[in-house]
Amino acid sequence: MQALLAALLILGPWVAPVTTAAESAATLVTRGSSRGIPACASCHGATGSGNAELGYPRLAGLPAPYIEAQLEALAAGRRQNALMNAVAVKLSAKQRRELAQYFAALPFEPVSPVPARAQSGAGAELALHGRWSQNVPACTRCHGEAGVGVGERFPPLAGQPSRYIESQLLAWQQGTRHGEPLGLMQGIASHLSASDVHAVAAYFGVPPSASGDAPGGDAPPRAGGAAAGDGEPPPGERALPDGEFGKAVLLGRRIFEDPATYAKDYVGNALACSNCHLDAGRRADSAPLWAAFVAYPAYRAKTHRVESLEERMQGCFKYSMNGKSPPLGDPVLVSLSTYASWLARGERVDPNLPGRGYPRLPKPALAADFQRGARVYGEKCALCHGAGGEGQADHGGHAAFPALWGARSFNWGAGMGSITLAAGFIKANMPYSEGGSLSDQEAWDVATFVDSHERPQDPRFTGSVAETRAKYHDGPDWMYGVEVGGHVLGSDSVPPGPTPTGPGPTH
Amino acid sequence: MQALLAALLILGPWVAPVTTAAESAATLVTRGSSRGIPACASCHGATGSGNAELGYPRLAGLPAPYIEAQLEALAAGRRQNALMNAVAVKLSAKQRRELAQYFAALPFEPVSPVPARAQSGAGAELALHGRWSQNVPACTRCHGEAGVGVGERFPPLAGQPSRYIESQLLAWQQGTRHGEPLGLMQGIASHLSASDVHAVAAYFGVPPSASGDAPGGDAPPRAGGAAAGDGEPPPGERALPDGEFGKAVLLGRRIFEDPATYAKDYVGNALACSNCHLDAGRRADSAPLWAAFVAYPAYRAKTHRVESLEERMQGCFKYSMNGKSPPLGDPVLVSLSTYASWLARGERVDPNLPGRGYPRLPKPALAADFQRGARVYGEKCALCHGAGGEGQADHGGHAAFPALWGARSFNWGAGMGSITLAAGFIKANMPYSEGGSLSDQEAWDVATFVDSHERPQDPRFTGSVAETRAKYHDGPDWMYGVEVGGHVLGSDSVPPGPTPTGPGPTH
Repeated sequence: MQALLAALLILGPWVAPVTTAAESAATLVTRGSSRGIPACASCHGATGSGNAELGYPRLAGLPAPYIEAQLEALAAGRRQNALMNAVAVKLSAKQRRELAQYFAALPFEPVSPVPARAQSGAGAELALHGRWSQNVPACTRCHGEAGVGVGERFPPLAGQPSRYIESQLLAWQQGTRHGEPLGLMQGIASHLSASDVHAVAAYFGVPPSASGDAPGGDAPPRAGGAAAGDGEPPPGERALPDGEFGKAVLLGRRIFEDPATYAKDYVGNALACSNCHLDAGRRADSAPLWAAFVAYPAYRAKTHRVESLEERMQGCFKYSMNGKSPPLGDPVLVSLSTYASWLARGERVDPNLPGRGYPRLPKPALAADFQRGARVYGEKCALCHGAGGEGQADHGGHAAFPALWGARSFNWGAGMGSITLAAGFIKANMPYSEGGSLSDQEAWDVATFVDSHERPQDPRFTGSVAETRAKYHDGPDWMYGVEVGGHVLGSDSVPPGPTPTGPGPTH
Repeated sequence: MQALLAALLILGPWVAPVTTAAESAATLVTRGSSRGIPACASCHGATGSGNAELGYPRLAGLPAPYIEAQLEALAAGRRQNALMNAVAVKLSAKQRRELAQYFAALPFEPVSPVPARAQSGAGAELALHGRWSQNVPACTRCHGEAGVGVGERFPPLAGQPSRYIESQLLAWQQGTRHGEPLGLMQGIASHLSASDVHAVAAYFGVPPSASGDAPGGDAPPRAGGAAAGDGEPPPGERALPDGEFGKAVLLGRRIFEDPATYAKDYVGNALACSNCHLDAGRRADSAPLWAAFVAYPAYRAKTHRVESLEERMQGCFKYSMNGKSPPLGDPVLVSLSTYASWLARGERVDPNLPGRGYPRLPKPALAADFQRGARVYGEKCALCHGAGGEGQADHGGHAAFPALWGARSFNWGAGMGSITLAAGFIKANMPYSEGGSLSDQEAWDVATFVDSHERPQDPRFTGSVAETRAKYHDGPDWMYGVEVGGHVLGSDSVPPGPTPTGPGPTH
C-alpha cells in the first residue's frame, strides 16, 4: 500500500486508470467517479490545501485516522454538510480509508512557530490563553503549539481556512457536527460568542483573500470588531507592564508554560508547570499562583520547615519536573515568582485564599479501585494522555499532553503521586473544559489507577524501597512500595541521574 | 571627691559629722539638716532603692546629671511635688550636684534581661512595641532594653516603684512635670489612657507589695483590667501564630529588632532594622515591611534588575548594616520575609500601597544647608544620637540609639546616604513620637548635615573615590566624593573588611 501510494504520488493523476471497479483514491481525488462523486480536488485543491475563499478545508497532511473518521461521520450524518454527506455515503469503508491515507501523505508546509505570530488581540487571547472562567482552555492546549495538531484526534488548526474554522465552530454550536470523543468541542463552542468565533478563526486560519493553494498560517489576527468575552480580562491578562519588571513577568510566564525551552537546564521531562496549574497558573482550584504568592512563606510538612515561594518552586523542579532545583536567586525562580506576584496583584495576603491548591474530595463510598479507575482512564483520559499514560507531543514535536506515568512523567517525590491530591486535581480540572464532570468515585478511582504505575525514582531514595516508603510515603495516599500486579512500585524506578531531554513518550 | 565618697560609703552614716556649715551629701541623706531638710533616706531608703509601697523613686545608680537636673527642676517648680519642692529650694547648686553624685554612685542590682520578663499583656505591649498609630514608641526604644536606661537623659524605668512611674506619667499628663528636653514625655503621656498608665507602670515597676529595699524588676505585668488603647491591636500584634510558622515569625521579629544578637554573623555595626523601619517594620511612611512584602519582586535601579524581597534584604545587610549578605534561603532571610508576610496579612498585593517607603519631600525654599542642619541636629537629634552622631548604648551595653555617621554607622552604599531619602525619613519619623514636627526646610538641612559626614566605605568601592562617585553616587543627592570642610567624603572611609562587633560609639 505504501509503495502504491508512493507510485501514485510520483506518477500523478494523469496516468492513473479510471475504472468504476477500482476507483482508486487518486482517481477519486482528481476525477471523481461516474457514481456522482465529484473530484475531491475541485474543492480541496490538487495539493489538498483547501480553498480559503470558499472555506473548504485543507486535507493535506492531516492525520489519516482523523480524515477517515470525518468521512465516516459525514456518511453517518453526525457531521452535516449537504454536499459531503451525499459524497461520503457513496464511498466504501475501504475508499474512505484510502482517501484518508492519500491526503494524509500529501506534503504540507509547516506553519511558522508561535513567536512569529501575533500575540495580542481577542483571537490570540482565546488561542493562547483560553477563557478558563468559562472552562474554555487555550486552543493550543489540545491542538498543539501554534495549532499544528496533536496525534490523530486533535487536528491542525493552522493552515485551515479561517472560514472553515468558523463554520465548524458554528456547526458545533448548532449541533450539526457532533459525536467526537468526549464531546469536548461542543461544550467549548457553546461558550463562544459570534465575535469570539470570528476572532479565533481569524487567528489560526488562512484569510479568504489568500490563494487557495497558499499554505498560510502567518496571517495576523484581525480584531473582528468587538472584544472577546465578558468584558473584564482574566487576571494576569491585563497588559503586561513595561520595562524590566514586565520582561521578568513575561519570562516567568514563558517558563511556566514551556519550561523545556525556557528553563531547560532544570527539567527532566516534558511536563510544563501549566500542566498541573491550569490556565497558566490562574485557575482557582488548580493550585493557582496568585493564591500561592500570598500564602508563602509557609510551613511545609514535606520538608519540616518554613519555605519561601522560591524554595517551594525548587521542589516542583526536583519532583514534578523530575529535574533539578534552580539555585535561589536564579533568574528562573525570580521570574516565576515575579510572574506569580503579578497574577496576585489586588489579592489579599492570606494563606487560605479561596481557590488555593486543589480541592479536597470527601472519601468515596466505595474504596478506590484500580480496575474501575482503568475503565475511567480509558474512557476519559486516554484520548489526550495516551492509552499507556505516555502523553503526546504535537505535530511540531513539542510537548502537548503530559505523561502521567513512566520515565517521562513526574517522579515518586512529586505531590501528584498522592492519591488524595491527584483525585482533587482530577475532579476539579479534568478533562480540559469538562472539570467537575467526573463523579467523586470516578476521580478517586482514576487517581488510584494513575498513581499505581511505575515512574522515576524519588530523589530522596535511601537505597531501599521499603525504607523510602517508611520515610516519605507511609500511608494510604501513596502506592510507592506497594505491590500492584506482582510488581512492587518504586522497585524498578529510573534512579535519579542525568536528565533525559526532549519531549515524546518513552515509557 | 571620689575618695571622699568612697570613704563615706565605707564608714557609713554613723561617723559622719553633723555641721550646718558643711552639710555633706552623706549627712543630708542620712540625717537631713536643721534647716528643715528631712533625711533623704527616710523616703528613698538608706540604699537609695526607694519605697515601692509609697511610690518614692529609686535613686541608687541613676545618672548623676539626671538626678541633678531633677533637683533643679524641683527647685524651679518645673516638677511639682509639695515635699520635694520645699526641700530642693533649700539646697545649694553644689549640694544638688553632690547629692546627685552620691546617689549615682550607690550600687544597684541590674534588672533581669528582657527574655525573663513577661512578653504579653497591655503593659508589655506598650513597653516593648509602643502604639505607633498614636506616635507612641516603645518605652524601651529610648529607655533601653528592659528599661535599664540610656545615657544621662533617659533614666532607668526598671527597678522604679510602679506607683512612682504611674505618678510621673500622670504628672506629665497634668502638666505638673514639664521642661524636659524636647518635651517628648508630655506628648507621649498625652496619648495614654488611665489603664495604659497603670499597665506600663506595672510592667516596668516594683509592685507595692515588694520590700522597699528590694531591687525588683522581675514583677510580672498586671493586666490592670481594661486592655490598653483603642480596641484593635496594631497590625502584627495579633497573637503570634502557632507552630513552626509562628516560630519563624517570632525569629524574624527578633532579628528585625536585634540583629546584633539574632543575625550576628551578618551585621557590621550596632544598627537594627527597626532603626529605619520604625515600630518593628509596621509604621507607614517608615518603609514598612507589609508594604514591601506586597511590592516585591520589583525592579531596582540600584542593581538594574528585578529582585525578590530576600535579595532586597541582602542589600540592607550589606549596606545599612555594613555587614555581609546572608545567603538566599538562610534562616535569617526566610524568617525576615516570613515576618514581613505576617505583617502583610490582609493587605492587597500592590507595588504602591499608601505608606510604602519614605515620603518624598518637596524641594525646600532655600538650598539645603550644612550649618543650618547642624543647628537643627544640636537641638533635635543630639539628645538621642549624641553630639558626634555616635549613637548611644543603654546601661546594659545594648545598642539604643543608632550612630548616624562614623565607623559604627551605615556605609556609603546605604539608601539613607541619599539626602532625599533621609530627609523624607526624618520629616515623617523624627524625633521619636514627634514625627512631622520639623519643617521641610529643617528636614532637608539636617539630612544634608548628617549625610555630609564620613562613614564606612561603599562595598562597591572601585579603588577611586571619583570613579565610585561617578558610578554610584552621581547627582546632588549624594555627598560621597564631595569636599566638605577641606575633606573629600569617602576618601578616608574604613574600607570593607572584617566586621567590627558589639555596640557602642567608636567614632
